[in-house]
This record gives sequence, structure tokens and C-alpha cells, in this order.
Amino acid sequence: MSVAIVGAGPGDPGLVTVRALELVRSCEILVYDRLVSLDLVTKATGAARIAREGLTQQEVNELLVHHGRRGRAVVRLKGGDPFIFGRGSEEVDALAAAGVEYEVVPGVSTFTAVPGLTGIPLTARGVAAQLTILTGTTADGSDLDYEHLAATPGTLVIFMGLKRLAQLADNLILAGRRFDEPVAVVSRLSLPDAEIRIGTLGTIAAVARGLATPSLVVVGDVVAKASRLRAVVALAQSA
Amino acid sequence: MSVAIVGAGPGDPGLVTVRALELVRSCEILVYDRLVSLDLVTKATGAARIAREGLTQQEVNELLVHHGRRGRAVVRLKGGDPFIFGRGSEEVDALAAAGVEYEVVPGVSTFTAVPGLTGIPLTARGVAAQLTILTGTTADGSDLDYEHLAATPGTLVIFMGLKRLAQLADNLILAGRRFDEPVAVVSRLSLPDAEIRIGTLGTIAAVARGLATPSLVVVGDVVAKASRLRAVVALAQSA
Repeated sequence: MSVAIVGAGPGDPGLVTVRALELVRSCEILVYDRLVSLDLVTKATGAARIAREGLTQQEVNELLVHHGRRGRAVVRLKGGDPFIFGRGSEEVDALAAAGVEYEVVPGVSTFTAVPGLTGIPLTARGVAAQLTILTGTTADGSDLDYEHLAATPGTLVIFMGLKRLAQLADNLILAGRRFDEPVAVVSRLSLPDAEIRIGTLGTIAAVARGLATPSLVVVGDVVAKASRLRAVVALAQSA
Repeated sequence: MSVAIVGAGPGDPGLVTVRALELVRSCEILVYDRLVSLDLVTKATGAARIAREGLTQQEVNELLVHHGRRGRAVVRLKGGDPFIFGRGSEEVDALAAAGVEYEVVPGVSTFTAVPGLTGIPLTARGVAAQLTILTGTTADGSDLDYEHLAATPGTLVIFMGLKRLAQLADNLILAGRRFDEPVAVVSRLSLPDAEIRIGTLGTIAAVARGLATPSLVVVGDVVAKASRLRAVVALAQSA
């Protein structure tokens, strides 16, 4: 397969898949996101390494098509999973349109690392039978449907929600969600400078002030069910 | 860490994480789910291997606590990710209550393997900015809130929905979802006998008849956006 769209997982080198590691090690061209661990990038010893930063999405697509057409072994390494808000589909569409063969290797999505690293279970029998994953920043700039979100059962996981956190929390409360509903903001999950802050919809904007991106916002009663509060506290203090 | 709750990924041995493989190889006791690949189970060369099948959840919890208390290196290997409807939180709660040290290793959740193996993007800018993951079989036997689900934007991914597929589809249509909304049922994803069938909410119950579990039901316009229809067709024909 000429081009591989590969999920690198949340950042911890141990959370890379066997297949991803194999492809990175043997590729000729590596195009990697800012959030991919350097430890993994340096495994591409024989490859030309191209940081995605500074390139537009269009330029990335062209790069993949260009090298893919020439039959080079290209790895496009993306943080988390390529298709959970990773814009994998845009790159796949460009490759398909150009007739370039490709492979997609799923990764551990950053949000699935939440339970292991924070103790928040995300789904738990009797507490949350539904999980809703969304972006805080929509592609077309339109606002979220807060009325619907407020009535959504289970856990909400919001990608890229930190910048608009006050607006998100206020609108959820206005639409009927509880002021004291537990919320966690997890910053830079599984990276060495990870940090987590716990609050409620009413307090979280103040509590999370100053956290670094990328972040995940977790809203729901599962936050209060965290069974490893020691670990959570340790993580918060070490940050 | 004495006990590790480990996600094995969707079944393909290449989609196991480096950390999971390392833990499996060095463990003394391996408790594994039916859907974990045998290829991975046999990597636990020095371990007592215990199939989870035939044990109750309570018995599994007791087994983990029993060996964990004795300081044995225990790996509890679960299909997909332990916390995406994997009942990981019940095992973690039992370990925490017994004061046994544990670690959680996230895995590639089965649903994140859908884009790579079927071409269905799950999220795609401008098509689906929200992803809702739920179980077709709720813990308390209560029915789903079809009115709310019908109004939910983006993509729905339903775990364990195959048995109730006709009921699910009919109720979504009755609650206002389009009869011709695209639906895919993916059976035994990433296993050698994987199979996918594509239909609409109106036709899927008939189209998916006879498929084997486990399955994922994907509802939404992203199904029609599959950019690798060749792969989808090939997968469906090879099954």
C-alpha cells in the first residue's frame, strides 16, 4: 500500500499500535502532526520527515498524492485516531480522487485514554449508556444545538472545547442542564505535561482557566464516579 | 502494577498497542474475552490462560482481586477498548474496593476501525460533526429514547444492536428519521470472517438478516460517503 493514514494514539509511545509502528519504521516519507510523540517520529529512521505544521490541508493532500503517485511508502501520522475529528476523510478523499492506493490504520482515540489516565469511566452500567462525541468548534462556524445537547443522556465528550468553555457551559445550563453537573477538562492527555481539572458546569470555566490545548471536556455523572481519585489528584498536582 | 485492564483492539493482531503486547507477553495470569484474537492470547507464553466465557462478571472480579492481592502479574484482556461498553468500570471498581493496584491500558475501540475497514468516515467535516455511541441493549432493560435519538445530529453507532435491529430502525423512522437514511451493519469487524451490509433504515433489517455477532450498526449520511466502496464490496463479497 503506497500511502497509509495512521493513528498515532494519544501521545504515550506505548499506546501506538503494532501496525503503526511497523509502518513508521519502514516508510520513506513521514508527514506528522504536531501532537505525535517525538519518540515515534524518530523511529522513522530512513524517512524524509515532514512536519504538518505550517502546511494547509490542501498542501498536505497534495503532498500525499504527489508521493503516493510515485509509489513511495508514505505514512501520514495523525494524533489519536484519524477519523475521530482527525480530518482523515479529507485526505482519503484526495487520495481516492487521484487514484492513489491507500490504507487506514485506526489508532487509540485520545478520548478513550480518559478512563485509564483519569479514572473517569466514560461509560458505566447504570450511569451512562450513551456517549456523545462532538467538536466545540464546528466546521461551518454554526453554533451547537444546546437545547438538544442539554437533553442528551449519558456522557458528553467535547473535542476542541477549551476556548469556548464558558460559552459551552453557560449555554448547557441555560438549556436545562444542572449547574452542579460534574465536568472534567483534561489537557494534553497522556503527554508528560498532562493536567486535569474537575468542576461543575457552573464553575468549570473558572477552574480550567489557563489550561493548555489540546483538551477534552467531559460532562456527566461519570466524572464523579472516578474510582482513581488518587491518580486524578496526583496528575493534577504534578502538572 | 499488579492487575492491568487491557484493551486488545478490534481483533486484528496489528491493532494491538505496544503496551498491551508487552503486558500480555510478561503476565502470569491472563483472563481473556472470547473476541480477543487467539494470536494475541498465545503470546502469553508463560501465563495461566483463563477464558472469560462461562464465568459471571462477579467471578471475573473475584479472580482479578484474588490474584491481584497475591501480587501476581495479571492481565485482563478485553476486546476493543475496556471502557467503551466493555464493562471495564465494574472490574476497576472491584479492584479499587479491594485495595488492589491496577493499570488501565486503552485499546483501539472496535468502532474506530470502521473507517479503515469499510471506508465509512464516521466523522467528516460538513457531514457529521457529532458522533453518538450507544448500546442497543440497555443495562436496565429500559427502552431507548427514540424521539431524542431521531433528532440527534451526526452519526449514530450502535453496539449490540443486531438482535433488535428491526425494532431500532422502525422506531427511528416512527420518531422522524428518514426511511432512506443510509445504514451499515458491520459484523465481526477486523476478524477474518468480517462482513458488511449496506441498506437504509427502511431496508436494513431485511438486508442484515443472518449476520453474526458482534456487530456495529452505523446510521447516518457518512455511510453514503464511503470513499472506498470497492473495499466495502470486496469485504461483503468475501464473507
